[in-house]
Amino acid sequence: MSAINHTVAALAERFELTFKGDGARVIDGVGTLAGAGPSQLSFLSNSKYTTQLAATCAGVVVLREENLPDCQTSALIAKDPYVAYARIAALFERLPAAPPGVHPTAVVAASARISGSASIGPCCVIEDGAVIEDGVILGPHCIIGEHCTVGAQSRLVARVTLVTRVTLGRRVLVHPGAVIGSDGFGLAFDSDHGRWIKLPQLGGVRIGDDCEIGANTTIDRGALDDTVLEEDVRLDNQIQIAHNVYVGAHTAMAGCAAVAGSAKIGRYCMIGGNAGVLGHLELADRVTITAKSLVTHSIREPGEYSSGVPLQDNRQWRKNAARFKHLDEYARRLSALEKDSNNE
Amino acid sequence: MSAINHTVAALAERFELTFKGDGARVIDGVGTLAGAGPSQLSFLSNSKYTTQLAATCAGVVVLREENLPDCQTSALIAKDPYVAYARIAALFERLPAAPPGVHPTAVVAASARISGSASIGPCCVIEDGAVIEDGVILGPHCIIGEHCTVGAQSRLVARVTLVTRVTLGRRVLVHPGAVIGSDGFGLAFDSDHGRWIKLPQLGGVRIGDDCEIGANTTIDRGALDDTVLEEDVRLDNQIQIAHNVYVGAHTAMAGCAAVAGSAKIGRYCMIGGNAGVLGHLELADRVTITAKSLVTHSIREPGEYSSGVPLQDNRQWRKNAARFKHLDEYARRLSALEKDSNNE
Amino acid sequence: MSAINHTVAALAERFELTFKGDGARVIDGVGTLAGAGPSQLSFLSNSKYTTQLAATCAGVVVLREENLPDCQTSALIAKDPYVAYARIAALFERLPAAPPGVHPTAVVAASARISGSASIGPCCVIEDGAVIEDGVILGPHCIIGEHCTVGAQSRLVARVTLVTRVTLGRRVLVHPGAVIGSDGFGLAFDSDHGRWIKLPQLGGVRIGDDCEIGANTTIDRGALDDTVLEEDVRLDNQIQIAHNVYVGAHTAMAGCAAVAGSAKIGRYCMIGGNAGVLGHLELADRVTITAKSLVTHSIREPGEYSSGVPLQDNRQWRKNAARFKHLDEYARRLSALEKDSNNE
Repeated sequence: MSAINHTVAALAERFELTFKGDGARVIDGVGTLAGAGPSQLSFLSNSKYTTQLAATCAGVVVLREENLPDCQTSALIAKDPYVAYARIAALFERLPAAPPGVHPTAVVAASARISGSASIGPCCVIEDGAVIEDGVILGPHCIIGEHCTVGAQSRLVARVTLVTRVTLGRRVLVHPGAVIGSDGFGLAFDSDHGRWIKLPQLGGVRIGDDCEIGANTTIDRGALDDTVLEEDVRLDNQIQIAHNVYVGAHTAMAGCAAVAGSAKIGRYCMIGGNAGVLGHLELADRVTITAKSLVTHSIREPGEYSSGVPLQDNRQWRKNAARFKHLDEYARRLSALEKDSNNE
Repeated sequence: MSAINHTVAALAERFELTFKGDGARVIDGVGTLAGAGPSQLSFLSNSKYTTQLAATCAGVVVLREENLPDCQTSALIAKDPYVAYARIAALFERLPAAPPGVHPTAVVAASARISGSASIGPCCVIEDGAVIEDGVILGPHCIIGEHCTVGAQSRLVARVTLVTRVTLGRRVLVHPGAVIGSDGFGLAFDSDHGRWIKLPQLGGVRIGDDCEIGANTTIDRGALDDTVLEEDVRLDNQIQIAHNVYVGAHTAMAGCAAVAGSAKIGRYCMIGGNAGVLGHLELADRVTITAKSLVTHSIREPGEYSSGVPLQDNRQWRKNAARFKHLDEYARRLSALEKDSNNE
Repeated sequence: MSAINHTVAALAERFELTFKGDGARVIDGVGTLAGAGPSQLSFLSNSKYTTQLAATCAGVVVLREENLPDCQTSALIAKDPYVAYARIAALFERLPAAPPGVHPTAVVAASARISGSASIGPCCVIEDGAVIEDGVILGPHCIIGEHCTVGAQSRLVARVTLVTRVTLGRRVLVHPGAVIGSDGFGLAFDSDHGRWIKLPQLGGVRIGDDCEIGANTTIDRGALDDTVLEEDVRLDNQIQIAHNVYVGAHTAMAGCAAVAGSAKIGRYCMIGGNAGVLGHLELADRVTITAKSLVTHSIREPGEYSSGVPLQDNRQWRKNAARFKHLDEYARRLSALEKDSNNE
């Protein structure tokens, strides 16, 4: 495993940053301000950590110009140090080797089309009519179902299942255990027989370029039309996207969020961890939902929205929670008192 | 891929419906009122969409008799159009081919018994004492653990794990990533050593006929007795069913619902998305729990139950949520004022 | 399958308990007080079940000395019957056979090191630089990514994915569908281009001895430093642990709990089902969070904490929930009335 090395000056040039200090210093990795050593690069984005800047042993720090006076080591100056750091750090990531070709243990249907530059890992199963475009990497145990397409340069880390009629754009990254294109949960209640009748799920899923799908996340295919994620949508782990949901570009959802059927989420939305959106609702662009909130009506205006009550010591909480059951009565009694008071 | 075709008259006869209009029209698929073309069938169930009926290009629409006057195209008349549509649409679903036999990459224990009419997909692993009944389809990467039985005509779409002592009834449908029969979460705290002791999970799981289990759903096996789903239980994705839970027939749960150990859910219950039921509780038949509610006590009467507070603009919500911490105090102060007022 | 048999006297000796009654009685399994037969052992821990003790058909019952008078059958006397039962019951668990060696369908990288006493199941994939220590059991379909280590005597039941730079201690038990070492959800928003930039996730995951990880649980690897679980941490199914979380020894989390990035949980904590902890918070040792609560601030004192409101009949709940939106106003009106009242 050969080392990855860049001088400070080379990093400055590559990412169009200016540097102060030792441009010849060789950087071979990244670290936190507290943990980085003299051959590592760190960053200061949140001013809360300014005190760590003076003491850092990092070889170079990416920071805003205003923080230069507090920096004892070399510096790369950026308007947005976090974004600059993200770009630089990518240089130091070692991805597993993925040689082009199909692993001998993979099972590939005759009618599947696989680019010669794609890498298909052990025990992958690629079914009829599937298309694997240039530069795709399928880690071990991926299943690409009938009539699914994996766009160029996409990477399915391991054990990803595309069930059927799923199209991934270019540079899509999918983490292990994700299931895309599973049956939507569509049932009709047959009251004559007192039983459920399943609605066939005849649509598909379309995922735009540059999307990321977290581990064990599930995205159901549409009942008739498709479930859609526009480009650059970012989903964390264990998210549930139901059938016919539409998610606008650049929206991000934190772990365990869930969106019910046919909801339409705008662009640049931020959905907090374990937040939920009920079915058939619409969220405007640039709506933020805080963690564990439940969206029960459509939201027409950008902004931040919340539900829930604050955490308390259990004994205090019990008293308050018990009172919640009588809130309507209290409000009436309050109004009655006010009326009395006004009549006096 | 040959087309699937049915005339309107043939559909009427098969599903015991009456038709109006062009019985000879050939239908080769289904669609929404807004999207269906002249060779497709659509439906009108929710009167909210009646305005779309006049404009639809669908070749035939399934609807209630009362909506006939608004229909410009052929019609199939049904008492419950959604149920009739569900049955008809199933004709147009193309399931992946699943030829009988065991794929050469599957690994089958000598003591497993597999029906000659079953289809065992690539990389499946079938362990000692497992039984696969007639007409079963195991998609790729399914694992059928020791002493598990998959009932006749059941389909495990792909990558389903039955861990041990799991029995699936007939026509059970399980989606990718589901894990059934994993260890229940049973721990005893050994206070002498300050450590957890694991309780062996010696029971199994019994799933009734016609159940459906969603993607990445988990159902633990019982500690001593079995975890049980009666017939026609419908579970969406990412549901968690803990050990020794008992779910009555025809109950449906939406995505991300969770039921803790030894809870007993009645028949015909509806558990909303991300709702939770605490351990050892009982829910009567025909109980509905709305999304994200937490059931903290047993429910003896049918009906709809909820918890949670409404979504608001974050700034308003913060003010109200802060007040919640003093609700008990407010109630006392309100009572004190009333007492004063009465004494005056 | 030969039977597992122990006499009551042998159990008493092995677990350092005293017995009353028939020491020669042969026990071949365990059961509930209500369900156990004369060759089975049961236990009484919760005094709620004392009435079942008189009627049990169990061959022997593990109980506290104080319950002896109510016991008609043989008894094993324990200070903590639940812990004693857990230890005894483990004798009667039949684990699947796992002969040492590598299954012929497994795919093992040349640079991986596998102990001769390890058992590697069908279709496992073991990548470069991975280490599998003595006595490890990998069930079918496990993926051990680059530079991962599985400590001695650990068992990965089936279909477990360790992505990269994951180290499991000794005797770690991981259930099917768990994903450990997936990318943390680290994004920087590039406002110049209106797009997300991914932060490479360069850290790993360290799991201590005797941890248990539930089915479909996900644990992301750290962005720079590692995500850490100390020893004897017990995670139920479908739990989400984000990057750089630190969980203290002996902490247990129930199903569907979620911990956001860089949160630090103390030792001996109990996190309830579907509870959440926001990012960068700290929880002291011995903190209990009840089910579905959201932790929004650090907790410095041991104790039990809660959020949420109680479940009610939907009609009553709607009235109270609507009032919640005006709670701040009510509090102000209450204060105003009090002021009026005092001024009178």
